Amino acid sequence: MLPSHYNSQDCSVARALEIVGERWTLLIIREALHGRRAFDEFESSLGIASNTLAKRLDGLVENGILRRSDDPSDKRRKIYNLTPKGERLHLVIEALREWGDEHATLRRPPASYSHLSCGGDIEISLRCQKCAADLGTNELKRSEHRPLRI
Amino acid sequence: MLPSHYNSQDCSVARALEIVGERWTLLIIREALHGRRAFDEFESSLGIASNTLAKRLDGLVENGILRRSDDPSDKRRKIYNLTPKGERLHLVIEALREWGDEHATLRRPPASYSHLSCGGDIEISLRCQKCAADLGTNELKRSEHRPLRI
Repeated sequence: MLPSHYNSQDCSVARALEIVGERWTLLIIREALHGRRAFDEFESSLGIASNTLAKRLDGLVENGILRRSDDPSDKRRKIYNLTPKGERLHLVIEALREWGDEHATLRRPPASYSHLSCGGDIEISLRCQKCAADLGTNELKRSEHRPLRI
Repeated sequence: MLPSHYNSQDCSVARALEIVGERWTLLIIREALHGRRAFDEFESSLGIASNTLAKRLDGLVENGILRRSDDPSDKRRKIYNLTPKGERLHLVIEALREWGDEHATLRRPPASYSHLSCGGDIEISLRCQKCAADLGTNELKRSEHRPLRI
């Protein structure tokens, strides 16, 4: 989608941002996670210009994050569904939401999320798969596989 | 930083993106998490134009994500340290990295991260604080605190 903006950066964070870092893209994915499917549903829930929305949806389809198909209830319309690759972005959205709830709203957060089956509060965590510890920023070891610039 | 771009969106994800969604901002925070402190360290590791970097650093200081102070080894220079609010963005960076490793690189990821003390692999997860289950996208219940648009 933005193949050359961060091309000096050989890093998965930069590669991810090339695909989802454009304005509105993550909010479109948030809406898709909330069950929006049709162009006009995205348009009205986001208040986004239709030409921008069309461009972003095309990019998300190209990048395999959304799948475009005919709307079964109206063949003249298209609907957009998240692919498994797109669904995996829910962790990015939740991490942004949690940070935003804590640090970017002046008021009470507009919505909260809980575990559907038991009602428990939810949290994003960075965990060690071996010892199950929750990890802070100082508990990570970085191993480079090759030089940063190639 | 971008106070009016998503102002129809009463949502913590949108609020968070207003602060950290500008081009380069999350990569600057990634570099700060890697221990970069000085202007020229950010500049050379990112290959970013110096006027853009200066603007982004100012915005991050204004938003309480970085703290600017004199470099103790050279009083003419400034250094930038993450605040606790800034450090909490590591979960957003890790979620992007994990998704990028899996879905946005054609090759082997350029670096990997492990738990410093036990060497275990790390993972981002969305977990229920009550029953400790790892949660997928279909296991969340949304409770709105007031209408989406006010």
